[in-house]
Amino acid sequence: MPERAVVLLSGGLDSAAALAIARDRGLECHALSLDYGQRHRTELAAARRVAAALGAASHTLVPLDLRMFGGSALTDDIDVPKHRSGDEIADGIPVTYVPARNLVFLSLAVGHAEVVGARSIYLGVNAIDYSGYPDCRPEFVRSFEATANLATKAGVEGAGVSIIAPLMDLTKAEIIRQGVGLGVDFALTSSCYDPDEDGRACGACDSCVLRRQGFEAAGVPDPTRYR
Amino acid sequence: MPERAVVLLSGGLDSAAALAIARDRGLECHALSLDYGQRHRTELAAARRVAAALGAASHTLVPLDLRMFGGSALTDDIDVPKHRSGDEIADGIPVTYVPARNLVFLSLAVGHAEVVGARSIYLGVNAIDYSGYPDCRPEFVRSFEATANLATKAGVEGAGVSIIAPLMDLTKAEIIRQGVGLGVDFALTSSCYDPDEDGRACGACDSCVLRRQGFEAAGVPDPTRYR
Repeated sequence: MPERAVVLLSGGLDSAAALAIARDRGLECHALSLDYGQRHRTELAAARRVAAALGAASHTLVPLDLRMFGGSALTDDIDVPKHRSGDEIADGIPVTYVPARNLVFLSLAVGHAEVVGARSIYLGVNAIDYSGYPDCRPEFVRSFEATANLATKAGVEGAGVSIIAPLMDLTKAEIIRQGVGLGVDFALTSSCYDPDEDGRACGACDSCVLRRQGFEAAGVPDPTRYR
Repeated sequence: MPERAVVLLSGGLDSAAALAIARDRGLECHALSLDYGQRHRTELAAARRVAAALGAASHTLVPLDLRMFGGSALTDDIDVPKHRSGDEIADGIPVTYVPARNLVFLSLAVGHAEVVGARSIYLGVNAIDYSGYPDCRPEFVRSFEATANLATKAGVEGAGVSIIAPLMDLTKAEIIRQGVGLGVDFALTSSCYDPDEDGRACGACDSCVLRRQGFEAAGVPDPTRYR
């Protein structure tokens, strides 16, 4: 029986690559997505398409409305920043930061992993070409893993769970090339923070800028549908 | 302006005492409760009563259905153990364990704390007279605090958040005596894992056994409504 993994799947480019990598390592992948009231809900449809295309064994959607906490341009009526340069994006924590998002998502993944019997959790964070979010850094991921194994029955009585961030040290271009090599169809993914009703990308938010630059640097045609 | 705290409030005896302690320390308390599909939903009504009686500045109820993960007698059709002795309760992790529950709850509290500007999070876990849950141990709480401050804007750019477990080293009797001294009306609280439709306690589950023994040891009349 193949070893199992939980894969946090947002529907974006990075998590699709993370899922492809986990599958390539022979893992039975159980995808987990969160409906947290994000304004870019088109990414949840993308997550379903990606999970199906990459052969996830299951795909669980957790409704958790983080809008009641507020405080982010991704969930509130705060304008998503547009047309920022790479340097501007890298400088400081942006208004699209959602308080404690990866902490909450990883915690849910730990619970899911314990129930399905998964030994690892894959997530698509990376420290290069990222958007300045503190919960995408390797020191956070390592610390979370230690905490998770103190919190759970699996950690106390069994082998515990490993938190795997296979993209951590890759540039966006490297992620794209690796994904293409593993058969990821990036046309299925959605990265935009502010898509239109048809799911077409704005081309100008931080996430679109990083994605577009990544395809250019990778020498891979950009399959994104822009407005 | 008083310093703010988030208090995780289940509606049980321990979290009511934790809220009273936070208030007694002069903190403006923002209570947070989770509707996670628990079969003992009467505790949510108890949480509302306790938050009002102890003057919480706000009370937020987060709906998060953990039943989709399954795996616990508190959310699934698994029988809640009854009539176990204190030694049996202390031995191993029981079926009422909810995978990663405190990890998920604390993570949500961290997000809430960041948004309301709270510098501390109070929770009512204790390592003595507990039910064998790994996520009630001090080593988990300390590790979680370190992880949380790596995850958040508040931790990276500001003073971060402290996780306070004021009951950690107290017996149930000490918790009850301290709560009474701070004006907690324990008749408002609900601890039973398997109450009837009127919210009356079974008197036989682990939580009822520990609670009843606590009142006896404290020499305080037990205000619990039993069936």
